[in-house]
Amino acid sequence: MTKRVFSLSRVYGLLEPGPVLLLTTAHKGRSNVMTMSWHTMMEFEPPLVGCVVSGRDFSFTALKATRQCVLNIPSAGLAREVVGCGNTSGRKVDKFEAFGLTAQPASLVDAPLIAECHASLECRVVDTRLLNRYNFFVLEVLKAWVERDWKDARTLHHRGRGAFMVAGDTIRLASKMR
Amino acid sequence: MTKRVFSLSRVYGLLEPGPVLLLTTAHKGRSNVMTMSWHTMMEFEPPLVGCVVSGRDFSFTALKATRQCVLNIPSAGLAREVVGCGNTSGRKVDKFEAFGLTAQPASLVDAPLIAECHASLECRVVDTRLLNRYNFFVLEVLKAWVERDWKDARTLHHRGRGAFMVAGDTIRLASKMR
Repeated sequence: MTKRVFSLSRVYGLLEPGPVLLLTTAHKGRSNVMTMSWHTMMEFEPPLVGCVVSGRDFSFTALKATRQCVLNIPSAGLAREVVGCGNTSGRKVDKFEAFGLTAQPASLVDAPLIAECHASLECRVVDTRLLNRYNFFVLEVLKAWVERDWKDARTLHHRGRGAFMVAGDTIRLASKMR
Repeated sequence: MTKRVFSLSRVYGLLEPGPVLLLTTAHKGRSNVMTMSWHTMMEFEPPLVGCVVSGRDFSFTALKATRQCVLNIPSAGLAREVVGCGNTSGRKVDKFEAFGLTAQPASLVDAPLIAECHASLECRVVDTRLLNRYNFFVLEVLKAWVERDWKDARTLHHRGRGAFMVAGDTIRLASKMR
């Protein structure tokens, strides 16, 4: 997919619905991918995102050391890759190769974009005060990339134990809420 | 709706998909409801939930003072009520009355359950270290209530500016992920 730059002020619309993400890191010459569902928006602009990365995950070490990552948003066509990345460890497996994912260079961070995802957010770690207690990172989105038709993306939403809700239709109501 | 008690170890399955929530508080003899989409699971059990409540919201003062709330999960049939609660302030409006929502007593906190929601989580505030910087509360879920058919609930997922994705079908894949 060929992505275009996307306004940082609109990033919340990508993450608020709660999609499963593929978090990429690069550390000591190796890129890695992990599946993540525990994240929330924390500020509109610059966009801040809070997320939990288990201390057992290979990505935890990379994210803590490099303070950089990319949050990639997969859609339902990537369900097998999402589960595959969640069931393997980067310690043993090159997940890009194992699951046929294409790493693309980011513009501001060393971690790669995933070409097959409809949106990718380049991030840096800006707050680690809750890291020791909860493995909770606060990220700032530095640059956002999206496909043209991202609004129709059938995102995946984890229900646990291999069950994923696939995004359904969008309804619109008159609202003053941003 | 008549809810039953639900295992705390399974609460993550309710919140991981990223549904819009109705947060209730009770303070100085008044109950209030606000619409919230910025939340994430932070621990499985006891379930911890991180959430952002704007300092401009009437609920912020109540939550900070009482350190108690209920997270209620509405489904698509409550879309108008969700938007209504998001577009009014508890300073001026009794939202339960204005939007026809039924307050039910909780068992462990003073904030009420919303009868029309298919799940309600009684919570207390356990960490406020990120409160001043991000309006970020860490909540512990003390008791969970669900309707019998909660897994089929068509939850609402905020896309911004009055657009909500309605939960679609669930797909299942073999996975070791909890």
